[in-house]
Amino acid sequence: MTEDGRDGTVPGYRDTTALDLRSGTPVWDVPAPSPAADGAVGTPVHETTAIDRGAVPPPPAAAEPAPPRGVEQHLDEILSAVPQPDPIELAVLDAQGLLCAEEVVSQRALPAFDQAALDGYAARALDVEGATPAEPARLSVVGETVAGPSGPASIGPGMAQKVAAGAMLPAGADVVVPVVWTDGGMATVAVHAGPLAGTYVRRAGDDVAPGTTAVQVGTPIGPAQISLLAAVGRDRVQVRPRPRVAVLSAGGELVDISTTPAPGQVVDVNSYALAAAARDAGAEAYRWGILPAEPRRLSEVLESQLLRSDLVLVAGTLASEGDPVQEALAALGPMHFSQVTMHPGPVQAFGRLGRDAVPVICVPGEPVAALVAFEVFVRPAIRMMLGKRQLFRRTVQAIAAERLLSPLGYRQYLHGQVMRHPDGGYVVEPLGDGDEAMLARMARANCLIVVDEDVTEVAAGGLVTVMPLLLGG
Amino acid sequence: MTEDGRDGTVPGYRDTTALDLRSGTPVWDVPAPSPAADGAVGTPVHETTAIDRGAVPPPPAAAEPAPPRGVEQHLDEILSAVPQPDPIELAVLDAQGLLCAEEVVSQRALPAFDQAALDGYAARALDVEGATPAEPARLSVVGETVAGPSGPASIGPGMAQKVAAGAMLPAGADVVVPVVWTDGGMATVAVHAGPLAGTYVRRAGDDVAPGTTAVQVGTPIGPAQISLLAAVGRDRVQVRPRPRVAVLSAGGELVDISTTPAPGQVVDVNSYALAAAARDAGAEAYRWGILPAEPRRLSEVLESQLLRSDLVLVAGTLASEGDPVQEALAALGPMHFSQVTMHPGPVQAFGRLGRDAVPVICVPGEPVAALVAFEVFVRPAIRMMLGKRQLFRRTVQAIAAERLLSPLGYRQYLHGQVMRHPDGGYVVEPLGDGDEAMLARMARANCLIVVDEDVTEVAAGGLVTVMPLLLGG
Repeated sequence: MTEDGRDGTVPGYRDTTALDLRSGTPVWDVPAPSPAADGAVGTPVHETTAIDRGAVPPPPAAAEPAPPRGVEQHLDEILSAVPQPDPIELAVLDAQGLLCAEEVVSQRALPAFDQAALDGYAARALDVEGATPAEPARLSVVGETVAGPSGPASIGPGMAQKVAAGAMLPAGADVVVPVVWTDGGMATVAVHAGPLAGTYVRRAGDDVAPGTTAVQVGTPIGPAQISLLAAVGRDRVQVRPRPRVAVLSAGGELVDISTTPAPGQVVDVNSYALAAAARDAGAEAYRWGILPAEPRRLSEVLESQLLRSDLVLVAGTLASEGDPVQEALAALGPMHFSQVTMHPGPVQAFGRLGRDAVPVICVPGEPVAALVAFEVFVRPAIRMMLGKRQLFRRTVQAIAAERLLSPLGYRQYLHGQVMRHPDGGYVVEPLGDGDEAMLARMARANCLIVVDEDVTEVAAGGLVTVMPLLLGG
Repeated sequence: MTEDGRDGTVPGYRDTTALDLRSGTPVWDVPAPSPAADGAVGTPVHETTAIDRGAVPPPPAAAEPAPPRGVEQHLDEILSAVPQPDPIELAVLDAQGLLCAEEVVSQRALPAFDQAALDGYAARALDVEGATPAEPARLSVVGETVAGPSGPASIGPGMAQKVAAGAMLPAGADVVVPVVWTDGGMATVAVHAGPLAGTYVRRAGDDVAPGTTAVQVGTPIGPAQISLLAAVGRDRVQVRPRPRVAVLSAGGELVDISTTPAPGQVVDVNSYALAAAARDAGAEAYRWGILPAEPRRLSEVLESQLLRSDLVLVAGTLASEGDPVQEALAALGPMHFSQVTMHPGPVQAFGRLGRDAVPVICVPGEPVAALVAFEVFVRPAIRMMLGKRQLFRRTVQAIAAERLLSPLGYRQYLHGQVMRHPDGGYVVEPLGDGDEAMLARMARANCLIVVDEDVTEVAAGGLVTVMPLLLGG
């Protein structure tokens, strides 16, 4: 399958505005001919030949059976078919990072009992009302309570109980006078200020009343939610589980990372990179590795992965006729390969295979295209399975530091470095033209620049949409 | 230890501007006396009594041995004493999320061989120069190469080789003509455009040349870096490891989450919440739970945790005289308890204990204060151990939706909800006054509002510093 082998049925596809008319070469993917032209991405470099407008021939009629489709169309197919795994009950610490799947109603009051909010003297507000340093209220100290289990205590008029923060408030007391507002006396205490009733008292149920909801459905479980769940006595909680994602690589040219590749062979990069990306998106990722070539073994592997997974991810070219992986997938259910009008790409596939109709997403084998396809199609699917409300990364508008060229009719994803502009806003520098398998460049990127289908050129200084690739969450 | 039991040696501490002079009560922590006053945080509610300026008495002289210290001073002590764990070698997928601790020099060229960037015909640029649909260049197709291991192939003048994306380029070829720019012929091919030499060819070493650095020291390992490491044949990489953090709770009032608390008892919340917070900050967190009361057993637990940990975290009040945990810690090395001029707080402690001088951080036992202290002191320490350059969360300035009051001389941390303002910028709504143990409120917060020591009041509409509490990273 080629980068360019499409049937041209999208109106305007490969229109003349996307071509350098002097060379007949799409300006957006001409590599710089020499180091001297470095950075002159897409600048016309071929001055001598000429080609008529619209004269680029269509490809052979039979080459592409499926009509091309838009990015949104492919994404919609995936998102509408991705199942939502059933909630599971997990220990609260294992629930970290997941979404709560139940309405957690507290059976308890929080705090469970009236208590002192700080160290001081529990007293009756009436007894200390109007106290001043010049005319202190004098109370007899009838006992001391520290935090922890304690028997019932009470005070009457003119009495105080020494209390530590968190200690139960004795019956009859309605205020805690901080130590600093007293003389700190042990048998009797002189109180120099008269706080209002309720001051420095935490009343039972002030935080959470019994029968009220502590944590709602859909709340992400972080340290604060774990704190609250523990406080209401919940050691387990129903959550949306991490989807189990199996990651497989396809391609006769692939060897495992521990093997030195022979000429023409390449190391399997995708099963590592996509497993990392799936985990980063919140999935429980399993790296299977390179699919075997032998058809029977190949089918066994695919079937076993379908049984254990909520989503299967296959990276590989996959679209040549007679591809054994494509055939093995087809035997397991309807798998639709499409030319998606995106760059890099374009071959993408989706189907629901096996007994349980498990979603299977195929992405290109070229490692840069594989991670771009992951961002565009797989990450939103994983987030949907996690129950997240926000499926997509936040995008920002940024000033293009360089001129960008993009093929008409294709949504182009370019790796870039986005940074804050000293005057506010963002500026983005593209890293290459997105056409080549440049892993070192991708590793330096912190964003994807998204150029819409109907845009063929963004001038330096123009605004582009940028998707920062923050890790995690 | 009280919220207010300090020795007043910080100049201006508890100055009159932090007091409601009509009541003698610090305005910032007076609870609302009735539901009707809800939201009137800090509004003077006591109209009848009077107190002289500066007449609030000092606390008993012997109550606080250590002088109070600023937040930065305590943080500096921790950060300057936190060790940096030695790098370890991990499998690339286990290195995800960590910082690279070696200069990864590629022994290989990437790509390893000259190859076609897309499906087409490998040819000599000279043979197709000036070709047009009207005057195509005609070449004889001498073979076909797919991706994968292949024997040597070559073309001479007037010849072309059909190539798939990723296939080795035959010797003699210097351009790949995309299928769409040809008639797609099998024996001979008519070429309709003449791309420049180098077009659609990936040269060996274009991405990474042998002997050059693929991944630098200090680079965070994400999916793109894993992709690159795999491509250069690295299945293992030296990284800064996750610090092992043991989390323990102290307090005679504590019972485990699975126990129904008796009157006066409370559930151990902190060992769960702080373990989650430590993990969220990037640590490998171990929750030990509630420290035993029996001194010998207590010492055994602390010693064993020091042996297995890079950092030990203890939550608990800890500062009363004769506290068994404080005594057990003191037996293991110098542990400094301080009154830190922050709210909530203020009791914080740090020391390096045991044979290996393992850092031990003690935070308050009150769960809201514990997570605030984690944010302020522990998270930066964990990030430093991870080797991160950015130790602190990004802060933004936000418009306060309500009036805020804060104690003079204390840095106040209030939970809040920050949101984007429709007109740009941010607006923040405080959730309560930060004084009470309000877990439900903390669980609804998405930020901490930080009010500096010298600020006692922020008017509604004024700007405050806000620290968004995003999870992860």
